[in-house]
Amino acid sequence: MQNLKVYNTLSRKKEIFEPLNAPFVGMYVCGPTVYSEVHLGNSRTFISFDIIFRYLSHLGYKVRYVRNITDAGHLENDADEGEDKISKKARLTQLEPMEIVQKYTLDFHHVLRLFNNKPPSIEPTATGHILEQITMAKDILNKGLAYESNGSIYFDVDAFNKEFNNEYGRLSGRNVEDMISNTRELDGQSEKRNPADFALWKKASPEHIMRWDSPWSIGFPGWHLECSVMSSKYLGKQFDIHGGGMDLKFPHHECEIAQNKASHGKKEPVKYWLHANMLTLNGQRMSKSTGNTLLPHELFSGENDKLSQAFSPMVVRFFILQAHYRSTLDLSNDALLAAEKGFQKMITATHTLSTLKAAQESSLNIDELIAKWYAAMNDDFNTPVLIAQLFDGVKLINNIKDGKSTLNKVDLEKLQKEFSSFVFDVLGLKTEAQTQNQGDEILNGVMKTLLELRKQAKDNKDWTTADLIRNQLAELKIKVTDTKDGAIWEAE
Amino acid sequence: MQNLKVYNTLSRKKEIFEPLNAPFVGMYVCGPTVYSEVHLGNSRTFISFDIIFRYLSHLGYKVRYVRNITDAGHLENDADEGEDKISKKARLTQLEPMEIVQKYTLDFHHVLRLFNNKPPSIEPTATGHILEQITMAKDILNKGLAYESNGSIYFDVDAFNKEFNNEYGRLSGRNVEDMISNTRELDGQSEKRNPADFALWKKASPEHIMRWDSPWSIGFPGWHLECSVMSSKYLGKQFDIHGGGMDLKFPHHECEIAQNKASHGKKEPVKYWLHANMLTLNGQRMSKSTGNTLLPHELFSGENDKLSQAFSPMVVRFFILQAHYRSTLDLSNDALLAAEKGFQKMITATHTLSTLKAAQESSLNIDELIAKWYAAMNDDFNTPVLIAQLFDGVKLINNIKDGKSTLNKVDLEKLQKEFSSFVFDVLGLKTEAQTQNQGDEILNGVMKTLLELRKQAKDNKDWTTADLIRNQLAELKIKVTDTKDGAIWEAE
Repeated sequence: MQNLKVYNTLSRKKEIFEPLNAPFVGMYVCGPTVYSEVHLGNSRTFISFDIIFRYLSHLGYKVRYVRNITDAGHLENDADEGEDKISKKARLTQLEPMEIVQKYTLDFHHVLRLFNNKPPSIEPTATGHILEQITMAKDILNKGLAYESNGSIYFDVDAFNKEFNNEYGRLSGRNVEDMISNTRELDGQSEKRNPADFALWKKASPEHIMRWDSPWSIGFPGWHLECSVMSSKYLGKQFDIHGGGMDLKFPHHECEIAQNKASHGKKEPVKYWLHANMLTLNGQRMSKSTGNTLLPHELFSGENDKLSQAFSPMVVRFFILQAHYRSTLDLSNDALLAAEKGFQKMITATHTLSTLKAAQESSLNIDELIAKWYAAMNDDFNTPVLIAQLFDGVKLINNIKDGKSTLNKVDLEKLQKEFSSFVFDVLGLKTEAQTQNQGDEILNGVMKTLLELRKQAKDNKDWTTADLIRNQLAELKIKVTDTKDGAIWEAE
Repeated sequence: MQNLKVYNTLSRKKEIFEPLNAPFVGMYVCGPTVYSEVHLGNSRTFISFDIIFRYLSHLGYKVRYVRNITDAGHLENDADEGEDKISKKARLTQLEPMEIVQKYTLDFHHVLRLFNNKPPSIEPTATGHILEQITMAKDILNKGLAYESNGSIYFDVDAFNKEFNNEYGRLSGRNVEDMISNTRELDGQSEKRNPADFALWKKASPEHIMRWDSPWSIGFPGWHLECSVMSSKYLGKQFDIHGGGMDLKFPHHECEIAQNKASHGKKEPVKYWLHANMLTLNGQRMSKSTGNTLLPHELFSGENDKLSQAFSPMVVRFFILQAHYRSTLDLSNDALLAAEKGFQKMITATHTLSTLKAAQESSLNIDELIAKWYAAMNDDFNTPVLIAQLFDGVKLINNIKDGKSTLNKVDLEKLQKEFSSFVFDVLGLKTEAQTQNQGDEILNGVMKTLLELRKQAKDNKDWTTADLIRNQLAELKIKVTDTKDGAIWEAE
């Protein structure tokens, strides 16, 4: 456990992971704003933190994993302007905002279940913590680090930086002066003393339908405030890990730190800041406006002209884990096809592994191999290195099957336990049979028998039987293709 | 649409269903308190309202269906005393209350998904509406129909009944004088002016960990208040249907009406009050303390000594729908076995139906049969009568298959459309293949072919092929039994 190192965005280096109150670990990850289907880039972020949750649990830590649902307060642009994303969707679709929230929260849970992500321990919502947000805004106001302007409350970045040693900007490495000169002038900006200031509470315009009573106005909380409130409510004023997508580093996480310090004092609210990198598509940034985009359900059904076929959630998960969470990753049809092969090879090895027989002596040191798996994950959760080294395990498994290597009983059991636990528990992969259901495994077996009978009938020139099989499979929409290695089949 | 009648608990009779703003229908159903696994009785209630949601949608109504999650405020007994149910579970299991909420909300959603319930349009939580609850309590206090006592706010039932013509008690048919004499004296009761009064806000005792700031005390909302707040927030001050289990009629729904009227005026907040009846087990009330209890997952796995086998969620759903939602229903192993047969018969008929061929003439009037299905559902959602009459449809389908009846093309298509839509859309049943996945349908087809080949081999005394098939199926743990109607198979 003491060997785990994590890259801390705050210090810009890998640090030894030492939780504040081991074996307990508090981890907060910024969740989705539920106004549209979860996109693949977000899915990657949540799969990355699922791996971190799983590995910390595997090491024996008791992790309280909090991931929020943003169901109010997230405006169309980050400078506190524009419509609330959920209200806008509600207006466009003529639904109640909370109907939008329900629809896309269910979709989000559904997609993450398909990806075999474990649910977080707590999944709090912004609307579930309006009172707590008002309380924190009041507190910051009382401390002189925020001001009221026309019914809205803004965080005073200048005042904060004077009192807190220019803390604002440290996480993202920005300097407030630059930020001010880079900020476009926006409508309503004049309410702010300084363009870098950000809203803790916004007075609702008449058309803004998601609104609550506060001491200052009928309005709604600023987007950044919910995460400060919910992380400290459920994990305490100081906690271990805060994660999210790279794009949240600024302004969202910078604002969170400022709010937490303004309210709770100078101690670092978060010990380790972890950020997951972007996913690109065919070499370019995903973007709805250019059409360079792909939704999870399109991947699973294959219904997108960027794809030659459907890819199962487990293949996509495997593909994502083949890159380190801090690297950008480019998704393409070819890369997914390659991932599919790799995934199948690994899963086949887990089946083979369960059939291996122990020998008297071990022909190699199994502990060394297993130690490499831990070393990979201990190096900032390096899943691509882990996968490469698990493939050394696959080679070993096949060698044992072929009689080229041997393991004694103790070593074989160790291999079986550790290989399965890295593949299934840590990487969170599932065999297709586990994914779909046991039926598929049976179907594969039955089809194998049927194709054998078909071959036998053809060899015997028993055309009646061969035709019977062909016709019945055609009726079931099963396509059989003869290859030099025998017949293969697929269901349409 | 104008023929639908619903039994209204408030008037104690069946009334023609006329929504306030057709084609829109607002429906609120009291959801679970998420402190333990959802029990079967609750599942029955939610399946009952799922049918109502589905049938109203089938008739063309645009239903906004709101079902809450109680994640705070529900105390151990209904007289505003005892620990919060969720806090207590959190204390016993050493978890944060919101970890309890997350765990059992996920379990609840999982079980209802297995039962093929449609999710509600909005699923609000009590903790998501603390501010609104404080606002409503303030409003009732301002109107002189509640009073503060030691930091808590109680609804003044006597004052309300004087102003509102003895309204409190009308829904449940109780009389306040009786209620007072039947109420046990309880600790802390002395805060109330009258034992029939109920809490709108409770000051938190030091050990009560779920707590929020209010004008009166740090405390938490009374259990009844959340439903008044959330139903009127999302459906308006007057809406069409309010549902829940029979046990909620008093005091919960009685208190809701009182709160809504106290705050919003004399108009009826709810047009139709619908209540689902109890589920008993082997003739007796389900109860944890006597051990006469059964959880949904025990039914699905068969792991309870009251059961001879596992029952699929669809069999249980079918069983539940064989009784009217307002009747008590007794669950037993024998009743489930019988339901399983009925369910299979109905599903088989849906398969047969898709293979039927049209004739020149119809030998009977299909419109009359279909009209009976609507008549059954229009009579207060009478699913047992519907199911009985769908079995007349099953008989007809089998007669057509056997050439004993005929339908012309138009009539056959009508039968296909309406039979499927009653079975799948209205009753919400699924074939096992739909339940598990498409793979099963393919597996059934492939197995059929394989068993035909096996028969053929045996008829031809081709023992090599017959043995090959037998051995390979044995390896896949598929058991084949020869019966007088041919071979049947099952996977172990």
